[in-house]
Amino acid sequence: MDVRDYVEANARAFIDDLKQWLAIPSISADPDRHGDVRRSAEWLAVHLRGAGFGVAEVWETPSGGLPAVFAEWPAADPAAAPTVLVYGHHDVQPVEPMEEWHSPPFEPAERDGLLVGRGASDDKGQVLFHSLGVRACLAASSAAAPPVTIKLLIEGEEESGSEHFADLLRREQARLACDVIVISDTTMWAADVPSMCTGMRGLVPVEVTLTGPVRDLHSGSFGGGVPNPLHAMASLLAGLHDEQGRVTLPRFYDRVLPLSEEERDLLARLPFDQKQWLAEAGQSGAAYGEQGFSTLERIWARPTAEVNGMWGGHTGPGSKTIIPRAAHAKISFRLVADQDPADVGEAFREYVAAATPDGLTATVTVQPAVRPCHSPITSPAVLAGRRAMQRAFGREVLFTKEGGSGPEADLAEILAAPLVFVAVGLDSDQIHAPNESVDLSLLLRGAEVSAYLWEELAAADLK
Amino acid sequence: MDVRDYVEANARAFIDDLKQWLAIPSISADPDRHGDVRRSAEWLAVHLRGAGFGVAEVWETPSGGLPAVFAEWPAADPAAAPTVLVYGHHDVQPVEPMEEWHSPPFEPAERDGLLVGRGASDDKGQVLFHSLGVRACLAASSAAAPPVTIKLLIEGEEESGSEHFADLLRREQARLACDVIVISDTTMWAADVPSMCTGMRGLVPVEVTLTGPVRDLHSGSFGGGVPNPLHAMASLLAGLHDEQGRVTLPRFYDRVLPLSEEERDLLARLPFDQKQWLAEAGQSGAAYGEQGFSTLERIWARPTAEVNGMWGGHTGPGSKTIIPRAAHAKISFRLVADQDPADVGEAFREYVAAATPDGLTATVTVQPAVRPCHSPITSPAVLAGRRAMQRAFGREVLFTKEGGSGPEADLAEILAAPLVFVAVGLDSDQIHAPNESVDLSLLLRGAEVSAYLWEELAAADLK
Repeated sequence: MDVRDYVEANARAFIDDLKQWLAIPSISADPDRHGDVRRSAEWLAVHLRGAGFGVAEVWETPSGGLPAVFAEWPAADPAAAPTVLVYGHHDVQPVEPMEEWHSPPFEPAERDGLLVGRGASDDKGQVLFHSLGVRACLAASSAAAPPVTIKLLIEGEEESGSEHFADLLRREQARLACDVIVISDTTMWAADVPSMCTGMRGLVPVEVTLTGPVRDLHSGSFGGGVPNPLHAMASLLAGLHDEQGRVTLPRFYDRVLPLSEEERDLLARLPFDQKQWLAEAGQSGAAYGEQGFSTLERIWARPTAEVNGMWGGHTGPGSKTIIPRAAHAKISFRLVADQDPADVGEAFREYVAAATPDGLTATVTVQPAVRPCHSPITSPAVLAGRRAMQRAFGREVLFTKEGGSGPEADLAEILAAPLVFVAVGLDSDQIHAPNESVDLSLLLRGAEVSAYLWEELAAADLK
Repeated sequence: MDVRDYVEANARAFIDDLKQWLAIPSISADPDRHGDVRRSAEWLAVHLRGAGFGVAEVWETPSGGLPAVFAEWPAADPAAAPTVLVYGHHDVQPVEPMEEWHSPPFEPAERDGLLVGRGASDDKGQVLFHSLGVRACLAASSAAAPPVTIKLLIEGEEESGSEHFADLLRREQARLACDVIVISDTTMWAADVPSMCTGMRGLVPVEVTLTGPVRDLHSGSFGGGVPNPLHAMASLLAGLHDEQGRVTLPRFYDRVLPLSEEERDLLARLPFDQKQWLAEAGQSGAAYGEQGFSTLERIWARPTAEVNGMWGGHTGPGSKTIIPRAAHAKISFRLVADQDPADVGEAFREYVAAATPDGLTATVTVQPAVRPCHSPITSPAVLAGRRAMQRAFGREVLFTKEGGSGPEADLAEILAAPLVFVAVGLDSDQIHAPNESVDLSLLLRGAEVSAYLWEELAAADLK
């Protein structure tokens, strides 16, 4: 029995299992649902043991966080075969606004080839296809053990900020040791354009305050004779970009990995409707951003600085003729590999110090950062993942990136292993929104991808 | 009997009259005190009739505003003599915080040569010295009528924005016709540095909003690919000044009257303690502002642009990675003669249109403006006022300006007459603050100035 036949033969049981799991409202952001998050972890551990995983444990996170699930199925000869760690999460987003759901979010419903319910795509459906995938792989090869050692780490706090995740990784570093990390928590370009994510931007949020006068001053008496913090803030923010749309922080681009010609060509082959994308943002005009790059390159592969908020002085109705005592701004930098958040925070401090005129005082706060992550398209792991996807989809697989990111960079850094993104979600799945769904035929295709993935990774030069 | 002897002989009665008037709490900003504002007007009309003014009327303002007082004392030969209109106001500021007053604000008290009470300096004391001044002039010259026709217009809404004043001026234009307007509502540089104000800056408050995205956008998904209204606003505000500290609006300086060498020399002779002035504003460093001008020139004689407030995006705690849909700013331009507020509003609209990038929409609101006013130091009226002050003080009188302004420009424009500022208030009078006071010896000196002023204006070439 080949992989596809096995997946088809077991589809009904797989879907029924997933519906059982989706019925557990594991909303990590809602303290009233934390018991359900635990039930969800327990359900998954029981399911994985039933699927054949020798180890399937509920792991408590440090400081009383929400539980993760760890499972392991060793290769026949673990010393010779590579170890693959699959990351996903079993917690889900809140469901408000309830009135917009066409069926209750935790009563999963099949409609027109879709399975509708909270978590169907993000991320329970995409976790569970690996369970079917391993069994399909074994059935097709008539082996008792997979060709690689498979470990699963399924988090319970992803939708509420992964607060304890890095600590968990550090604590369990030995048991999580692996040669490659498979992430199944992203999307493809489209149902007929299979693709793999190859990078996520990092984030450095900062805040800056400029203070000057001891109090708000009357602009009739003082205007023109003392520095105005709002003027200085405007100049500071205006100076963050040059005329080419590049960020002006010192050393900002020094460690940015350039896109290869191959990557640019592959990105350009994505059927991107720029006009529609701009329209979604309320833009009717031309594309906008750093010169020399396409829109997809700008939002995926280039670092940026965005002012997220600024305020100071009189903001109520009417006019108030003051020179205000302070001006404030919140800015976030999106980073790409190999930029280091600590460097960028330091460069921002230098930039502010140089941009603060005599007579004003600057205060800078650098908030907790997220590292960028990067999965090179020429790496053996990505090539193996791509072959697995191409076998399942029967067509060329393209590459995408994501503009934001979650805990992936922590995984790569703490476990010191490369990332491969293998997922079958779609933008149309409406994750985080009412009526989240997953395309069941794509989910079954995901199980096929998973079945091939172990073979392809076993054959790749990962060690 | 000469002027000084007459003033000294009548000082006690003058002070007692003033104390009676100060006991009336004519707070125009407080609706509960509007009856007192009316009583204050009636008191003044009675007083002026007693002093010898043939006409002394309470004038209702249009639209049910608070009453003004008009009085007139014609010259012996009204056709041959010039007409002088004195402007002042009989309403006062609120008194909060009450607990900081050392004696009740409406129980005027004499202490160490000061008269303490709300309105002592601003402006009842400075209005009333003219009543003593006219009588001193007549006593010294043994004439029955003053050498000029004297008109008094004493407003009742100055401390609450002079809302109906321009309309009153237009309605009563015929009876208010005059050759010169004397303003007694300002200050001198210091008790031992008598001075006259020669100009007040005007004001054009504006508001600008830049809108872009249809809603706040996720900066991970869109950051770098669409214009951010906060960036555009920062550039717009930063571009309002060039590197020399000059305002960059088109045509902004075209109608600015340059300071003459004589004016700059006279301003430079004021004993200005720049270090202390900067310290009051919380500045420990060097002076700041438009290049090529002193601090006093910058705040008195040069037009400015000050951002009074700006806001947009996320301004609460923590970070929120958005591209916000809109950015806002409030700006006020201070104008000097002969700038026209309408021109500046128009120039601002042009500036914003040019500074708004493709993909964003700008909305500009220009609020009601105040014209600048100007009283040239070489004009016959100012020279006459200066001679009167020099005779009373026995020393050279210098010139100042003020950074803000009230209804003076309306007076000059609607009545089409030049302004002369004659006043004896001091910064230490604490007007608008608790424990407002006036130096009684200066107030009596003001009466002397007033007595000489009619003579000097009669001799000047005003017609």
